[in-house]
Amino acid sequence: MIKKLMTTGIALSALVGATAQADEGMWQPHQLPQIKKQLKAAGLKLNPEKMADLSQFPMNAIVSLGGCSASFLSEQGLVVTNHHCAYGNIQHNSTAENNLLVNGFVAKSKDKELAATPNSRIYVTESLTNVTKDIKSSIPHGATGVAYFDAIDKREKELVADCEASQDYRCSVYSFHGGAEYFLIKQLAIRDVRLVYAPPSSIGKFGGDTDNWMWPRHTGDWSFYRAYVGKDGKPADYSEDNVPFKPDAFLKVNANGVDEGDYVMVLGYPGRTNRYRTDVEVENQFTNVYPRSKRLQEEYIDVIKANSEEGSDARIKYAGTIAGLANYAKNYGSMIESYNKGDMLERKRQLNNDLKAWINADKNRKAKYGKALDTLNALILESQKDQEADTLLGLVSRGSMMRVASNLYRLAHEKQKPNVERRRGFQDRDMRRFEQGMKVLNKRFDEQVDKALFLHFVKEYMTLPAEKRNETFDVYFGLDQGLDMKALEDKINKMYAETELTTAEARLAWMEKSVEDFEKSDDPFIQYAVTMYDVAMAKEEQDKALSGKLQQARPAYMEAMIAFKKSRGEAVYADANSSLRITYGNVKGYSPQDGLYATPFTSLEGMLAKYIPGDDEFDLFPNIREAIAAKKYGPYKNEKLGSVPVNYLSTLDITGGNSGSATLNDKGEFVGLVFDGVYESIIGDWDYDPKLNRAIHTSVPFMLWTMEYIDGAQNIIDEMTIVK
Amino acid sequence: MIKKLMTTGIALSALVGATAQADEGMWQPHQLPQIKKQLKAAGLKLNPEKMADLSQFPMNAIVSLGGCSASFLSEQGLVVTNHHCAYGNIQHNSTAENNLLVNGFVAKSKDKELAATPNSRIYVTESLTNVTKDIKSSIPHGATGVAYFDAIDKREKELVADCEASQDYRCSVYSFHGGAEYFLIKQLAIRDVRLVYAPPSSIGKFGGDTDNWMWPRHTGDWSFYRAYVGKDGKPADYSEDNVPFKPDAFLKVNANGVDEGDYVMVLGYPGRTNRYRTDVEVENQFTNVYPRSKRLQEEYIDVIKANSEEGSDARIKYAGTIAGLANYAKNYGSMIESYNKGDMLERKRQLNNDLKAWINADKNRKAKYGKALDTLNALILESQKDQEADTLLGLVSRGSMMRVASNLYRLAHEKQKPNVERRRGFQDRDMRRFEQGMKVLNKRFDEQVDKALFLHFVKEYMTLPAEKRNETFDVYFGLDQGLDMKALEDKINKMYAETELTTAEARLAWMEKSVEDFEKSDDPFIQYAVTMYDVAMAKEEQDKALSGKLQQARPAYMEAMIAFKKSRGEAVYADANSSLRITYGNVKGYSPQDGLYATPFTSLEGMLAKYIPGDDEFDLFPNIREAIAAKKYGPYKNEKLGSVPVNYLSTLDITGGNSGSATLNDKGEFVGLVFDGVYESIIGDWDYDPKLNRAIHTSVPFMLWTMEYIDGAQNIIDEMTIVK
Repeated sequence: MIKKLMTTGIALSALVGATAQADEGMWQPHQLPQIKKQLKAAGLKLNPEKMADLSQFPMNAIVSLGGCSASFLSEQGLVVTNHHCAYGNIQHNSTAENNLLVNGFVAKSKDKELAATPNSRIYVTESLTNVTKDIKSSIPHGATGVAYFDAIDKREKELVADCEASQDYRCSVYSFHGGAEYFLIKQLAIRDVRLVYAPPSSIGKFGGDTDNWMWPRHTGDWSFYRAYVGKDGKPADYSEDNVPFKPDAFLKVNANGVDEGDYVMVLGYPGRTNRYRTDVEVENQFTNVYPRSKRLQEEYIDVIKANSEEGSDARIKYAGTIAGLANYAKNYGSMIESYNKGDMLERKRQLNNDLKAWINADKNRKAKYGKALDTLNALILESQKDQEADTLLGLVSRGSMMRVASNLYRLAHEKQKPNVERRRGFQDRDMRRFEQGMKVLNKRFDEQVDKALFLHFVKEYMTLPAEKRNETFDVYFGLDQGLDMKALEDKINKMYAETELTTAEARLAWMEKSVEDFEKSDDPFIQYAVTMYDVAMAKEEQDKALSGKLQQARPAYMEAMIAFKKSRGEAVYADANSSLRITYGNVKGYSPQDGLYATPFTSLEGMLAKYIPGDDEFDLFPNIREAIAAKKYGPYKNEKLGSVPVNYLSTLDITGGNSGSATLNDKGEFVGLVFDGVYESIIGDWDYDPKLNRAIHTSVPFMLWTMEYIDGAQNIIDEMTIVK
Repeated sequence: MIKKLMTTGIALSALVGATAQADEGMWQPHQLPQIKKQLKAAGLKLNPEKMADLSQFPMNAIVSLGGCSASFLSEQGLVVTNHHCAYGNIQHNSTAENNLLVNGFVAKSKDKELAATPNSRIYVTESLTNVTKDIKSSIPHGATGVAYFDAIDKREKELVADCEASQDYRCSVYSFHGGAEYFLIKQLAIRDVRLVYAPPSSIGKFGGDTDNWMWPRHTGDWSFYRAYVGKDGKPADYSEDNVPFKPDAFLKVNANGVDEGDYVMVLGYPGRTNRYRTDVEVENQFTNVYPRSKRLQEEYIDVIKANSEEGSDARIKYAGTIAGLANYAKNYGSMIESYNKGDMLERKRQLNNDLKAWINADKNRKAKYGKALDTLNALILESQKDQEADTLLGLVSRGSMMRVASNLYRLAHEKQKPNVERRRGFQDRDMRRFEQGMKVLNKRFDEQVDKALFLHFVKEYMTLPAEKRNETFDVYFGLDQGLDMKALEDKINKMYAETELTTAEARLAWMEKSVEDFEKSDDPFIQYAVTMYDVAMAKEEQDKALSGKLQQARPAYMEAMIAFKKSRGEAVYADANSSLRITYGNVKGYSPQDGLYATPFTSLEGMLAKYIPGDDEFDLFPNIREAIAAKKYGPYKNEKLGSVPVNYLSTLDITGGNSGSATLNDKGEFVGLVFDGVYESIIGDWDYDPKLNRAIHTSVPFMLWTMEYIDGAQNIIDEMTIVK
């Protein structure tokens, strides 16, 4: 089904024969031939030219779930991804009698497979088209700021709309190097997705939040889906008549897994990295943004907890929010810690100085790139000017009802425009998700907590000088007269008492209303939205103008950087942007700390050693404990390890979005699933350190061992092609 | 000065050519020739026969500080031990202007050395005499219980009194294998001890309580003393006229330190182990005693904290108590954790079953040892019967005033007897320490806290059934009428209000009073002591009877065990008992957890990585940071490590009391100081696990590096004999 790989017009990221940094790099498929020496040196036995072709093996076995990666493991559309990627669908199929998250699930035959949520998708990338020229030529000569931004925005939307002419496809334009290149990516969107197999949580989520980002690790983080299509082979809504999707290729499963030092690669969809940020951005991020965000996240959690009893309905509604915020706070904490220990800023400064010196050493280069860095940094400084105020205003206007009302009113405005001119998130293609959001809001919202968050953060917002605050907002809440907490509390209580937006019915009804309807409403939150609209739009235009300028300045800087790196013989990969990438490296341990070495494999015995009876995170069912205690390894034992390898470490360069990505060996055989990075590699989104950056994979032997001895999933083993 | 090593009459612990377990074992010097094969195999180049001789090198360079070990490093009486062993004396010499704990101290010449506290001692072991026959022959034929106990007790005291005829000596009788063997140990007691050198706390105590028992470790845990004697060469009280003690030998210092796999041995005075306890004892200890003790220790801390403000005088008085209790609670917690993870109990049961089977397989053995284990276990069960009640009564009668009054009244009684018949702790040799205790009590005691502890634990005491409680105690406090907290509080308040024992003067005065004086006193705590005395004495007689029986039963069991082990070709070392021992093994890392390996060395860079500005535990002076950052290694760099080795791990079998012990290489050269064990080896007091048991040493290169580049202690380097 995968048609062809468009690789015309590649300019910036093509550097034949350059010496890529080992292990670092998230490479676009078309770049593989350019780093073939490095790939061979690392141990790859496949032909890099062939690997660059989306229509050939192994690329045609790799899919996206939107946010997670996955791959085909049989000719009948069997798809493997992470347990944590399938979590929502496992939960969705759980009942009071049978909690599949706890117990796991195996469909012994296809008719026992369980339908995923209607929004679930399996995306098969069919083409990657370089549309840089197309987009750049759409920009009027001399355009800058808003005009520049809007021209790109419009052309992108047109390209996407054309590409999505059939509802079977999902298309996106991705910018690379901050706008130096644009690719249109066309994906077949399979929408009948079924759950085939999920291990119990004591395998699939073993270690829970405690072990999240941690090594040693013992998590069986896999789940299996099957892709179904209509009898015509085209994507179709769920139907009993649908048939398994037949992929052009699938991965063979290597039951031996890997050994220390082995070549491995991960093919998937990494989300976002910031490897080419300037020193000005790095310093601001690590000394202002992350510390402030971490503090505010922690305060946010504290306010939720102080206003909802443990175990109460209110607390349950915010469980996801708390987990998410705690996750970010831990993530940011790790990054701040790594930053303070390391010398990233100094190296960034050195790099920028080296770049400047290189530019200034040549008249032509000076003419071409001379102003790039200064122009970019000036814009960056401008963008940082109001960041604190924006964050705090964002927090006080983050109340559920405020956001709902603002979004609904915005929708009324956007609907007045032709579809392609609407803001992203308000186009026809976004409406199902929008509606869904309006429906489920009450599951994640408690009035008492919502108010408490507002009243908490408004105090910090009010520490801003008046000129940094939003005057309209202040007047609406009487904050222009100073902070009167009692009056404010009365005001917000009254708003909640009088609004009708707290019901899903009312929200859905407002989706159909006109701008005039909003303007005439006396619902206090609708009034709030109407009042705030003009100022918000003005701010949006300001942001657009800055974005437009950055869309011009950053590619100029990146062109200079790429040329400079080329002069040093270094290949350049683009920052992750959720598009398909390949990262390669080796199975390898690391030293997290002086005097300690993280060995590259964990074993079943280590899993048993972590067992805590009845614990949420470290419980193990008796059959698991018995099988381990009995050393019932079957054919899955690794002789060097003396046990079944559970998880392993590699030098691969991954980030969020890579979850569920297949790990392949030198022959392109499936040898694991990447599912996490170690604590010391969290800062990897900014700075890859070959000494500390390690990805964590779940091993194939552990997967097969669990299927055979624990979960009784022999039918799935039989369906796959097992090699040794 | 060391005269001779008595090794006559060795029977039980002599097994020529037996295959000792590698690394495990705290060997008595006289046993070394019997394990010479193992020593050679491990890498020892010295002659084990010579090493068995206390009067020869290296044994004649090893000393005890009482509780800690130490060794001579120059012919002028320079002694090295741990910083934590010299802590009290460093503190003692600190002033408000110059806190030596923080700043460290170097005497640039002998006249700058600082006198230690008057109670400080350096003990040089001069002889070890096997007095088993002497003691056993003093026991009347057929004696058992109290008579058996008293006979041994009396003979031990006589031997000690004879040996201590000169005040220059300190003597003790140590029992081995629970009473199968007895040795009289005679030590020269040097009493003019001076502080020569202590590193700053950011070296000597780096890592503080956080790193206690932990690896990776970066502590420079050393300090230097000098031993002074009178001009006649005999021990003398501090005097300016005293001269440095000239030891018969001292250790050469190997500036290269050690490498992975190197032979190392530790010579020192390990305190106490429980390696030969029966399964009945092990199970009781780990499922009853340790969990209960840990809980009570934690409660004790909580009560102190709840009744003394942070930073208050009261809290400061209990700082040592809290630290000690927390230390034990952590220690017990580790042991319980290790026990629950491991299979010690099963192995103990297996061993006992194997022992029984071996005994029963032979008529003679059956006749000789048939009842040993059952007899012992019956006594053990009897001793466990009242353990909970004893613990709780101990806690409620642990109030400072109750203990003081009881001890003073006991002293009045004991003084009526001839010195050798008095109870240990009440003999003439104990009086200085007794008096000192009475003097300093107020530094560690707060009335409010004392009362609160009593009122807290009495509640738990009262949950015991009446027959388990102490009736006299109950009547004295009105507890026989049930628990009336208000009445109890009034009672204890009244007692404190009326007692005179809260002043040191009163306590010292009572040391001179007669039994009659006590009986006539109306001081409420004195009355309490008088009231409780008879019951306490009866209980003591009961305990003695049981001890006497155990002194018969345990050696019988150990004889069987030793014979059994001999039949399997295993050498047997005795449990640690604070007497001089040698343990040997190799420099080696370990895996604390599946997926992690503790490498055997830490480096200066790891120390710098732990640096936290201004932190109590992880601060580093600027000169230290600068020297590390500048990679100013001098000749102390280990090429394999690429840095100066700070601490290292070995397989050596050590325990408390080994602190300060010299670590020697295959040639008997000083290569470090042992100062701690890793967390996983805390259970080692019961069970040595070759996979997990690791000792932590501070390295000689780190010591010399610090002396030369940080502390400016070149004069001490010059005084030592440095080899490479």
